[in-house]
Amino acid sequence: MVERVLGLLEEKKYNELKSLLESMNSADIATILGEIEDEDMTVVYRLLNKDAAAETFAFMESDLQERLISAMTDKELQDVTSKLFLDDTIALIGEMPAGIVKRILRQADPAKRKLINELLNYPSDSAGSVMTIEFVDLRENMTVAQAFDRIRQVGVNKETIYTCYALDEGRRIRGLVTAKDLMLNDQNTLISDIMEKDPVVVNTLEDKEDAVKKFDKYDLLSIPVVDQENRMVGIITIDDAVDVMKDENTEDFEKMAALNPSEDTYFRTSVFKHAKNRIVWLLALMLSATVTGLLITKYENAFAAIPLLVAFIPMLMDTGGNCGSQTSTLVIRGLAIDEIKSRDYIRVLWKEVRVAALVGTALAVVNGARILIQYKDFNMALVVGLTLICTVVISKMLGCTLPMVAKRLKLDPALMAAPLITTIVDTCSIVIYFKIAMKVMHLS
Amino acid sequence: MVERVLGLLEEKKYNELKSLLESMNSADIATILGEIEDEDMTVVYRLLNKDAAAETFAFMESDLQERLISAMTDKELQDVTSKLFLDDTIALIGEMPAGIVKRILRQADPAKRKLINELLNYPSDSAGSVMTIEFVDLRENMTVAQAFDRIRQVGVNKETIYTCYALDEGRRIRGLVTAKDLMLNDQNTLISDIMEKDPVVVNTLEDKEDAVKKFDKYDLLSIPVVDQENRMVGIITIDDAVDVMKDENTEDFEKMAALNPSEDTYFRTSVFKHAKNRIVWLLALMLSATVTGLLITKYENAFAAIPLLVAFIPMLMDTGGNCGSQTSTLVIRGLAIDEIKSRDYIRVLWKEVRVAALVGTALAVVNGARILIQYKDFNMALVVGLTLICTVVISKMLGCTLPMVAKRLKLDPALMAAPLITTIVDTCSIVIYFKIAMKVMHLS
Repeated sequence: MVERVLGLLEEKKYNELKSLLESMNSADIATILGEIEDEDMTVVYRLLNKDAAAETFAFMESDLQERLISAMTDKELQDVTSKLFLDDTIALIGEMPAGIVKRILRQADPAKRKLINELLNYPSDSAGSVMTIEFVDLRENMTVAQAFDRIRQVGVNKETIYTCYALDEGRRIRGLVTAKDLMLNDQNTLISDIMEKDPVVVNTLEDKEDAVKKFDKYDLLSIPVVDQENRMVGIITIDDAVDVMKDENTEDFEKMAALNPSEDTYFRTSVFKHAKNRIVWLLALMLSATVTGLLITKYENAFAAIPLLVAFIPMLMDTGGNCGSQTSTLVIRGLAIDEIKSRDYIRVLWKEVRVAALVGTALAVVNGARILIQYKDFNMALVVGLTLICTVVISKMLGCTLPMVAKRLKLDPALMAAPLITTIVDTCSIVIYFKIAMKVMHLS
Repeated sequence: MVERVLGLLEEKKYNELKSLLESMNSADIATILGEIEDEDMTVVYRLLNKDAAAETFAFMESDLQERLISAMTDKELQDVTSKLFLDDTIALIGEMPAGIVKRILRQADPAKRKLINELLNYPSDSAGSVMTIEFVDLRENMTVAQAFDRIRQVGVNKETIYTCYALDEGRRIRGLVTAKDLMLNDQNTLISDIMEKDPVVVNTLEDKEDAVKKFDKYDLLSIPVVDQENRMVGIITIDDAVDVMKDENTEDFEKMAALNPSEDTYFRTSVFKHAKNRIVWLLALMLSATVTGLLITKYENAFAAIPLLVAFIPMLMDTGGNCGSQTSTLVIRGLAIDEIKSRDYIRVLWKEVRVAALVGTALAVVNGARILIQYKDFNMALVVGLTLICTVVISKMLGCTLPMVAKRLKLDPALMAAPLITTIVDTCSIVIYFKIAMKVMHLS
């Protein structure tokens, strides 16, 4: 498709290109614009009609939006931003450099500028920061026919018209009706007779992660947002909820790999920023790992007498780390999707201890057999086997305990993931290893 | 809330309890039922009216559904299943033991049973397995008024009426209209004049993960599913798409922690099954780690001469592992959400090499300083510092190369995560460490 667009462009067949674009989906046009040179990109973009231009713009990656705005006249910028939904405008402002933000705000009329500034004031992790204020408000005493009229009158500029809210004079929510209810009921039915009372709401200052969980729990397409005085100020729609879920998942993946979460995409983050995001944890973990190293030096005599002891250190460390990371991953994910609750701690611990006993024994047997065959050294097989079992049990216990303690302390369980657990388990397993070795092999 | 329900139950105030339940959301009722004893649960459930009962049932966890069905009469089971949407029935059948599946199928009328069997035949990772066949089909030559009539006539049993599809005689899709289009256009407008032509579709046999990505890309509420002959057979709705995304994310977390993904929740998976899911990778990684151990034995002379060398092994191994896991996590996640494409390999590699140079140097300097202060041993600081830089660069190069190679080979990049990369990096760093040590310290 890219080739066809570029071909028509080169042959200057603008009319043909224009009708090709008209037959295409805005999301696909946005993808194509992202794949061609900036000069071509602006030419193609200017062939779109106003509606398609605004829609395509909303689908673009932020770096493309930035390049495009830089090439736009103020008039063109106004055409686009005036057609964006307010939540898309807020998202755009959050991602653009200061110069472009100023241009966008200058194009907006005073009323809109005021709204934008209000929305920008919500903390970035709050439900308010992802809501849109464009929704359909009804009154309880309207009939279905009047509701339809109201939707026809205001609906075209609303992000969704499929859930409408009946508000009282104080803009407090009396109930909700879906478009389905409206379509399936008689024209003269009163809204108050078909509306669902006490719908699920979220507060503007609530954590956005908690807010979007309600979409899944209650199977919603949108959720109303109320302020501290319980007045309805906006809605969160499911497309934005899905984006929040995606970001939260990415953040968890990053935290669990000892990365400071990045606000930006991989390529938009500079090399220096990437390094900064990674170095903090690496330094902390590196310095903790030296503790393990210091402990090892205490046992110099042991491995001076039996150098083979050193050969099993990597295997013990890796296995301990892997076992701990398996458990911590399951527990962190379980907590994130509410499959595991804080109060389940004893159940989880008991389960993990039993799993660890099974797994540890199996690993010890396989490894013991290998050592017996390879080195014909029963004592070494015994030492490594016993250490393995202890290491697996400890790592699995830590793997479930640390994330659940973090949750209790209102910290993010994702921080208690593989890297940290590995470092702690390493220290334990090295000490256990040499203690057992000295006992079994009568070293001192 | 649970206390209030149990209180009313104990005082046998059934009427009061009934009206309390009527005021509650089905999802919340399902949560409460999951938290009380089985006996109380069935009593409370029977107080619900038929519609609320079916809705509440759909919100339940599968283990609760199983316990409830076991307590139900065949008549009650039929009441519930006849009201479930077909995709919920399919999901239910997938999770119930054989005895209950038989009972469910026996309650269904022959036509429905045939449909269920057809749907069950789709591979479990295909788009067909998550679709519902209940959608609103229109004709191009209908007017808006006729479309509304059709929706009123068939809509009550459809999972969504917000996207309707105009089909031709061969059930091929001619276009789609949203309920918004219908509501905002004149009653006499022809569907063919307002419908969107060539909508995005997915094929029944397409991977469900690819199918649900289109929801995010095109901002959809539902997507039509067509068979091999291009006939429309169903739709996927966004609530099911969100469930698929959630499951795919959980699967990625599990794979990246060296776990065989579990079909079931943490608690529903038995201890034995948990052990089985974990042991395969642990065994494989343990045996690979012994390679590192064997390599170490080659350098026995080196650490017999300078025992301090052993003390830095844990730190080098951990740091290499953490660096590799940072990069592989970013790349695997980037590939999963299409922020990174296979063709970006060189860009990613070049970025990672520069990040690695920065990070490696910083770690080497900090660690070198520590060694100088603690041991006043310049050679040791030099050896450890050089090894650190090499290890960081190698681990970051492997961390981006392996997942991207996997993607090229149509394997799951998530398998190339921390555990595997750590094992490979360990081997490299140990060899580099001793090679540099022997050179700098003139050992042999």
